[in-house]
Amino acid sequence: METFKVPVGISNRHIHLSHDHIEALFGEGYSLTKMKDLSQPGQFASEETVTLIGPKGAIAGVRVLGPARKASQVELTATDTFKLGVKPPVRDSGKIEETPGIDVEGPKGRIHMNKGVIIAARHLHMSPQDAEKYKLDDGQYIRAIVPGSRGGILDQVLVRVSPDYALDLHVDTDEGNAFSLVNGQLLEVCLP
Amino acid sequence: METFKVPVGISNRHIHLSHDHIEALFGEGYSLTKMKDLSQPGQFASEETVTLIGPKGAIAGVRVLGPARKASQVELTATDTFKLGVKPPVRDSGKIEETPGIDVEGPKGRIHMNKGVIIAARHLHMSPQDAEKYKLDDGQYIRAIVPGSRGGILDQVLVRVSPDYALDLHVDTDEGNAFSLVNGQLLEVCLP
Repeated sequence: METFKVPVGISNRHIHLSHDHIEALFGEGYSLTKMKDLSQPGQFASEETVTLIGPKGAIAGVRVLGPARKASQVELTATDTFKLGVKPPVRDSGKIEETPGIDVEGPKGRIHMNKGVIIAARHLHMSPQDAEKYKLDDGQYIRAIVPGSRGGILDQVLVRVSPDYALDLHVDTDEGNAFSLVNGQLLEVCLP
Repeated sequence: METFKVPVGISNRHIHLSHDHIEALFGEGYSLTKMKDLSQPGQFASEETVTLIGPKGAIAGVRVLGPARKASQVELTATDTFKLGVKPPVRDSGKIEETPGIDVEGPKGRIHMNKGVIIAARHLHMSPQDAEKYKLDDGQYIRAIVPGSRGGILDQVLVRVSPDYALDLHVDTDEGNAFSLVNGQLLEVCLP
């Protein structure tokens, strides 16, 4: 594989909610209001935010991403986990078995999620066309090379291939800050 | 150079204060009270904390490190800078020319630092004996290899050699969190 460049997307803490949880937090029959589109087709940041309440503290203004998902999932940075007092594992999105839960408060109610809190593992979204072009398969790992005074290499970047995906390397704000990354910056990636 | 292992020290935000600033914040004739020794000989975390006040927000409980220094210096994570609304550069400790200032509040007064806010650059402290052993010079750069599911390479780690230093690779909490590092963890380092 030759190296190629991909844009970086830096995710702040956020929450995905099931339809039931949206209703419990925002009211019966409620549906999310799109604020802006995200890099992945069909995904959007909503106008809605919630408060996360952990054993040690709370974080308000946590953005709800839409559309509704089958299962609610909270994606935190490691920095956030100290403030809240929760100890989630680093996980691929959707793999929420044996993850901690948390309390979530919205304007119309409060729920307890009994699982679903993760620190999202680095990953690279791509379409099947991109995967073919770059000779990569879903589930492979690549590494990304970061230039600059806080440069280095991000290893263990999971390749995720789907017709629903656009080329974007997702890290969280801890990773973005550690490497002085900016949204949309192009990073060279290669096989480990 | 062969690779060798060094312990990691993860620094949270903190402030070094000049004697004058200690008096302005804590009272005339005040001197810092040691809470615990740090890895570097003679350096300590004090019992004292201050509040940093930036254009966008404040952070309370910021630990003062002792002993007093010739010039005050605030070391923030990039995460902190967004909360405070300041834009410090990534700098080696002590290099505070053309850095932003900030307001600092203590129990007995408030000061405006007109410079001295930095995001500390990664660095490796070592004694002249260690430098000789590992064939490294002050001012060289090395890289550190991080294993695990959030692994990778931290590049641009500045080697700092002094008789006052003990072997310790200093990163900040953003970097520690991005790589799932824990204090005291041993990392392999090598030349870039």
